[in-house]
Amino acid sequence: MTEQITIKLPSFPKGYHIITALIEERLPSLPDKGLVNIFIHHTSAGLSINENADPSVREDFESFLNKLIPENDPVYKHIFEGSDDMPAHLKSSLIGQSVLIPVTNGKLNLGTWQGIYLCEFRQHGGQRKVTITLFT
Amino acid sequence: MTEQITIKLPSFPKGYHIITALIEERLPSLPDKGLVNIFIHHTSAGLSINENADPSVREDFESFLNKLIPENDPVYKHIFEGSDDMPAHLKSSLIGQSVLIPVTNGKLNLGTWQGIYLCEFRQHGGQRKVTITLFT
Amino acid sequence: MTEQITIKLPSFPKGYHIITALIEERLPSLPDKGLVNIFIHHTSAGLSINENADPSVREDFESFLNKLIPENDPVYKHIFEGSDDMPAHLKSSLIGQSVLIPVTNGKLNLGTWQGIYLCEFRQHGGQRKVTITLFT
Repeated sequence: MTEQITIKLPSFPKGYHIITALIEERLPSLPDKGLVNIFIHHTSAGLSINENADPSVREDFESFLNKLIPENDPVYKHIFEGSDDMPAHLKSSLIGQSVLIPVTNGKLNLGTWQGIYLCEFRQHGGQRKVTITLFT
Repeated sequence: MTEQITIKLPSFPKGYHIITALIEERLPSLPDKGLVNIFIHHTSAGLSINENADPSVREDFESFLNKLIPENDPVYKHIFEGSDDMPAHLKSSLIGQSVLIPVTNGKLNLGTWQGIYLCEFRQHGGQRKVTITLFT
Repeated sequence: MTEQITIKLPSFPKGYHIITALIEERLPSLPDKGLVNIFIHHTSAGLSINENADPSVREDFESFLNKLIPENDPVYKHIFEGSDDMPAHLKSSLIGQSVLIPVTNGKLNLGTWQGIYLCEFRQHGGQRKVTITLFT
């Protein structure tokens, strides 16, 4: 029994944002055992799972990944969509566009410190579309 | 209802290659709602989803990732299979060996700009084997 | 038909460790066709698939990723949980917390050289909890 919905997230600024509650409020009734996949339909944003408590973790993600995968690197040829565009594509493949979370006893079975991150890699990414698929 | 096939992709040179059409032509009839997993059975290649339009994006992936994870780094001990081997293993775990794509209304529900990338990290990787699993 | 178990892995030192046999001995009877998801409930460890033969590959993972994502980087603000903490969060999102493996003919359908890695990013990570979900 598969259930699936596609939703638009609100616009977020460039950076890493916890969207666990936004996702949970859109989920159908969850089974005893299953899996939820969340897939983002974009090549300049990503989804990940990481620390849900201290905001400095998300700030360090932003600072460190900007340093690791910088704007205006001399090897880039794909530069006409803005200096944040090619780094966004690279980050999207390194972080990933999809998370898969076990469902147990009617809930997303995340660890105590795990939250779902929307990783917005562009300055003006706008509203991002995600598809949530539940398998029972 | 699970369907599964294993196929060999044609040989590709080192680099990033769009294989969306190659995959789509091997898919069984797709349901209204489901998920497709594509898994590559190798440790020196990867699968990802990224920009499907401008070839310079794939060229920049090749240049930038070669710079980020270089050949002949002095820390490498695993050097006897060629200078492209250890970087290939590292890239494979950072990019990933598996993509999971929602199926909606009988089609792979990729975003407008999303294509499936075969990431070939070796000079002579040969024909890569992938298993496609469809869940309905 | 979904089956799911949650297990604790033994404690491992910081580094990359093959846990294929540990996972296989905990799997239920596997079907002809399916998928197994393994999910780690932590933000400072990861799961990946990579080379299962030469131990120097895992040593190079440890050396190279420590260099790529170093401790004590000047951009980090999240420093009060130890110098290995923020690098662990970053590695966890780059490597990922989840692997998805096809099941074929009653077995995990891994390639000849593929093994499941527990990626322990902390000095004293302790016993890590993973949930294994099987879809048939």
